[in-house]
Amino acid sequence: MRSKSAAQAEKILTAAAQLFATHRFHEARMDDIATLAEVGKGTLYRYFKDKEELYVALLQGASEGLQQRLQACRDATADPVEQLRAVVEAIIHYFDERPHLFDLIQHAEVMHKSEQDFPWLTTRRQILALVKELLQESDYVVEDPELAALMLLGGLRGVLRFGQRPRPVQLAEKIVQRFLNGYATKYSSGRGRTLAYCEASVQG
Amino acid sequence: MRSKSAAQAEKILTAAAQLFATHRFHEARMDDIATLAEVGKGTLYRYFKDKEELYVALLQGASEGLQQRLQACRDATADPVEQLRAVVEAIIHYFDERPHLFDLIQHAEVMHKSEQDFPWLTTRRQILALVKELLQESDYVVEDPELAALMLLGGLRGVLRFGQRPRPVQLAEKIVQRFLNGYATKYSSGRGRTLAYCEASVQG
Repeated sequence: MRSKSAAQAEKILTAAAQLFATHRFHEARMDDIATLAEVGKGTLYRYFKDKEELYVALLQGASEGLQQRLQACRDATADPVEQLRAVVEAIIHYFDERPHLFDLIQHAEVMHKSEQDFPWLTTRRQILALVKELLQESDYVVEDPELAALMLLGGLRGVLRFGQRPRPVQLAEKIVQRFLNGYATKYSSGRGRTLAYCEASVQG
Repeated sequence: MRSKSAAQAEKILTAAAQLFATHRFHEARMDDIATLAEVGKGTLYRYFKDKEELYVALLQGASEGLQQRLQACRDATADPVEQLRAVVEAIIHYFDERPHLFDLIQHAEVMHKSEQDFPWLTTRRQILALVKELLQESDYVVEDPELAALMLLGGLRGVLRFGQRPRPVQLAEKIVQRFLNGYATKYSSGRGRTLAYCEASVQG
């Protein structure tokens, strides 16, 4: 009668995620995780032999969850640029819903070096490949899609970690639009800006 | 006769950087650092009371070094976009010359939360402010320079960590140019591309 259940494992992982969100890795104790999950310590150790195993399982779960969301973005529309916008939006939501996820990844990166120990490496590579693919499928010519995808995803990480909260409206839309079309509008040479103003006053 | 010298401190820091570059933090031992620096263990502990203090001193030194380089970029030219390109180039070189610097920062982020313990926080904020300033001083209109600066610097981090090596030629130039003007060239709607081809054939 000592079989493992998915529900029980989920309960333990939820408790661990909660604890890791508020305590540094070396401060979080297996005892506290057991208490929070309302399971005996023996049960906890039957599921996860130490904190590291819990960590890897949490990252594994986060990786799978994000990959499912990204697949849903691909299925929702046929337009690659629209898919890219949906992917950026899904990543923003996914991390914002899980404030501890960055710490999990950073801790794992500091502690582990191999792919097996650190499932996020696979996820990162898959997201990069997905973004490159969408850029290549789009109606745009994107030179050097590898560099472009790294700049987009790295930039997104910067915004997620250090950007303003609550998030600006249409953040994903802005990020993708400016990534594709640029952050700059030239104005000092005169003509472009004057034209734009003229059009605005004609239209408005 | 037990005064401290800057040269001695530098020797210890160089040895520590070397060791942290190839060993994880918890594997690097003070003994090994003393041996590598060719100082006695007593001397080592007079300069730095533990590994954490060494870590913080290394980050402090890296922060100051990078800030000096960035100041030199500002002084080299009056054009803000040219300065931005120089800043991006300086960051690329600085990190590429110090392969252990990312690990130092990650470790410090996992272990510390306060600014005092973690001098890189200040550097990161200053670089962000510098990029925003350059964007605002430039001849371009950049909407939301905070978002723009986060995307540029985050993207740069992505390229530094996961991008191709050796670095492509004119990498900094490409990054800044595409950041300002966009990664995309529309072509499938026909007209733009046809025009471009026509012009090319007329000119060529």
